[in-house]
Amino acid sequence: MSLLVTGSMALDTITTPHGTREAILGGAASFFSVGASHFTDIRLVGVIGDDFPDEHVAMLRARGIDMEGLERRAGAKTFRWTGRYAGRMDVAETLDTQLNVLGEFKPTLPGSFRETPYAFLANGDPVTQAWVRDQLAADSFVLLDTMNFWIEGSRDALVEAIRTVDGVVMNEDESRALVGRDNLIAEIGRITELGVSTLVVKKGEHGSILMKDGELFALPAYPLASVFDPTGAGDTFASGFMGAVAESGDTSFRGLKRALAYGTVVASFTVEGFGLERLLAIDRAEIDQRLEAFLEFTSWE
Amino acid sequence: MSLLVTGSMALDTITTPHGTREAILGGAASFFSVGASHFTDIRLVGVIGDDFPDEHVAMLRARGIDMEGLERRAGAKTFRWTGRYAGRMDVAETLDTQLNVLGEFKPTLPGSFRETPYAFLANGDPVTQAWVRDQLAADSFVLLDTMNFWIEGSRDALVEAIRTVDGVVMNEDESRALVGRDNLIAEIGRITELGVSTLVVKKGEHGSILMKDGELFALPAYPLASVFDPTGAGDTFASGFMGAVAESGDTSFRGLKRALAYGTVVASFTVEGFGLERLLAIDRAEIDQRLEAFLEFTSWE
Repeated sequence: MSLLVTGSMALDTITTPHGTREAILGGAASFFSVGASHFTDIRLVGVIGDDFPDEHVAMLRARGIDMEGLERRAGAKTFRWTGRYAGRMDVAETLDTQLNVLGEFKPTLPGSFRETPYAFLANGDPVTQAWVRDQLAADSFVLLDTMNFWIEGSRDALVEAIRTVDGVVMNEDESRALVGRDNLIAEIGRITELGVSTLVVKKGEHGSILMKDGELFALPAYPLASVFDPTGAGDTFASGFMGAVAESGDTSFRGLKRALAYGTVVASFTVEGFGLERLLAIDRAEIDQRLEAFLEFTSWE
Repeated sequence: MSLLVTGSMALDTITTPHGTREAILGGAASFFSVGASHFTDIRLVGVIGDDFPDEHVAMLRARGIDMEGLERRAGAKTFRWTGRYAGRMDVAETLDTQLNVLGEFKPTLPGSFRETPYAFLANGDPVTQAWVRDQLAADSFVLLDTMNFWIEGSRDALVEAIRTVDGVVMNEDESRALVGRDNLIAEIGRITELGVSTLVVKKGEHGSILMKDGELFALPAYPLASVFDPTGAGDTFASGFMGAVAESGDTSFRGLKRALAYGTVVASFTVEGFGLERLLAIDRAEIDQRLEAFLEFTSWE
């Protein structure tokens, strides 16, 4: 079934120990839509400027991604991010951020998008996230991502937005920023008390934890001996998770467990190349092969 | 089948946010032997002083632990450790260490112990670890533990000792101290190059990774919302691992995977009480019940 994503479209300049790439396609909506397009049909909602290369739009469209929700704003520039990773590459150092068109992003969904049964609200202003959620059908299954900037600066709006969605995805640092540093399992309990019924906490090389209605499930990360470029890992983790959910229609605990494994595997491909390189090069069979290998890596029975 | 452990016997004074316990039974050999006694019959090799309460020896003996290898040294004092945990309790702060009898610990195994098919060399001087290993039958399956003190101070002896055993258990910090900080999977590769064919890396609340002959397997930690006292978690992790191996006789990759799950579960009980409190209160059925729950927590298929 269809899966909608709303979030940033970006031109990223990235430096890792493996080199530099300038103004390559990035942004949460790009990463998510490419990752999830391996699973189901995608509806993209985002905004770009005059400077956004047509080839990227054509590439996304060629993957079957419905671009009706992409607004190209005349006389304006696309969101640009410049970042650098060093050492173990677990944290990005932001060198420059130019919000440009993203600063006033408050999308109105095309009419044909409103009944989309699954949706991902990528990291962004929680007021805008709630605004998009309200335009979707009440029975849409909606996952929300956030980051420290909003947790610290717009906590009340974020907690309100969280209450309107079905699930939240965040990383360990963000869970600590939201409820205070504690044992992670205790932190998850406190997030549950905010009214979150489904939560995914990403822990980078330490894997992830899923909570649904108080029940817990954990997976390690896929074992990679080196990371090429971590950009997009979080968004493509969400893309594998929501892609698998939208494909199967299974939002039971068991369905979400399997989705978490897909999220892990899709993210593991992302970090093996610059930007979207690897995700664009693989096909679904490779994802399923790696899922099988991951099952071996995590199952003792 | 029988399982031998050699390591420290201690009287620990421990402070956590939950209170203080003075001079309670501790030490790697105590923790390991109690944990592993849930699985198989144990042979303990250690040293104590005049001050070691008889009741501890009687308690261990009552659990079926063969104490023939326990040396009580007249006119000397037992190893004592005083430590404190605060905050998230992931690191112990050592307030005082009195090596006492442990300083000259170089045990000669009782003749009846030399054919023990499974053995655990708890953290200690690698020269002594190699000395004990040499007294065991060549086909004994031997696991070695270590810590940063030996990695930094006796690296050559440690690398030599590692080559004489079947497996090594260490935590993440120790793996980094041994081969340099890198991605953990890359670190495991470098440890393999030292001649380690089976490796267990413990990551605390992030679980553990097993490597056997280049193949990898990972488990998350058992989800506990609070930790009461982390003392002995590492040794009892090893006790569940080696206990399960000695019980089943299965050192295949599959057998070691299952053993890793038992290690995780036994350690999860340890941290729920001061010292050995919880491990002495539970029975095997409770361990197996938690293993079942852990399977639910980690299996998506």
